[in-house]
Amino acid sequence: MKYTSRLIEEAVEALSLLPSIGKKSALRLVLYLLSQNKDKSDRISKAIHKLSTEIKSCQKCHAYADTTICSICADSRRSKKVICVVESVRDLMAIEETQQYNGTYHILGGLISPLDGRGPDDIHIASLIHRVTEDQADELIMAISPTIEGETTIYYISRLLAESNVRISVISRGVSFAGELEYADELTLGRSIQSRIPYHQKSLSSEV
Amino acid sequence: MKYTSRLIEEAVEALSLLPSIGKKSALRLVLYLLSQNKDKSDRISKAIHKLSTEIKSCQKCHAYADTTICSICADSRRSKKVICVVESVRDLMAIEETQQYNGTYHILGGLISPLDGRGPDDIHIASLIHRVTEDQADELIMAISPTIEGETTIYYISRLLAESNVRISVISRGVSFAGELEYADELTLGRSIQSRIPYHQKSLSSEV
Repeated sequence: MKYTSRLIEEAVEALSLLPSIGKKSALRLVLYLLSQNKDKSDRISKAIHKLSTEIKSCQKCHAYADTTICSICADSRRSKKVICVVESVRDLMAIEETQQYNGTYHILGGLISPLDGRGPDDIHIASLIHRVTEDQADELIMAISPTIEGETTIYYISRLLAESNVRISVISRGVSFAGELEYADELTLGRSIQSRIPYHQKSLSSEV
Repeated sequence: MKYTSRLIEEAVEALSLLPSIGKKSALRLVLYLLSQNKDKSDRISKAIHKLSTEIKSCQKCHAYADTTICSICADSRRSKKVICVVESVRDLMAIEETQQYNGTYHILGGLISPLDGRGPDDIHIASLIHRVTEDQADELIMAISPTIEGETTIYYISRLLAESNVRISVISRGVSFAGELEYADELTLGRSIQSRIPYHQKSLSSEV
């Protein structure tokens, strides 16, 4: 593409560094910004700048935070005795969206994956074990994908905590509540039959 | 959506000001930036900042430019005698992409549209007339949509220049060269039959 301005070219190149934004979309965004009030560009450029310079990682759970402790860990109404272990901040946000959970989180920042050269020391496991002891946690809820890496990570953590009193649970998986049986994938449907629960205990977390 | 950081929330709000970027996509972009090297965010935020503070409008053709005259108007190899009149910079770029045009451009920045309260003085017509005289232009190529607004604008400009020697042409329209007849819209197909050209003159611009 030929641009009449080097500044436009630079902005297009920069915006197309973002995932799923190609050169054409980037150009559309740039021309949109140029057609708008300067304030809009300022707000976007400042927000991105702050993101890269001011954001911190929570010292307890490793979520992105504005201060050394994130708003969830700092919230006295949330239980420190129950820790939900997730792979990434994205998973934390998905669980927060449900408004069904009132404990705290621990973000591993990855899963154990020997094939990718990622061992237990490359993710936040040591700090999790430390928290379990320090906060005298009652339960760890593993909200981690049921992949080989996920299962390995859960197994590794459970071995480290075998001597402690902490309960370890995993989130239940099965056919989605909104889903029609015929559209569920075979693995999910098969597993959800195997891990069936007695009718009257449906709402209890009886599985693990 | 609940965020663990106010900075993330601000960045999501800011990015979702952009067209076709909703809150979910914005969050995905923000988490991507956080997962990457700081340089990437810096480059994007600087490019957007420069866009809003440093970009100029070319004094001749009104294209976005880094200096008072854009790179096309400043290029001595491009003919000043032929001026292609377009509605927006986007159209200029589309024509530049073809690499078939070696003249200069004039960006109107809109079309005459009484219904939207936009008259001839609200778009860059006066400066076009001035250029035609100053550069002693031979031809104006109207690359403007064949809508009521477009036709009105072309008619208005042609009336203003009726006394001058400048030739006024419009780009040819018809079934796309790559297009199958059956998929062409009725208007285009009908018009392209009406404005048929003798076989041997196919490649000449005989229409206007």
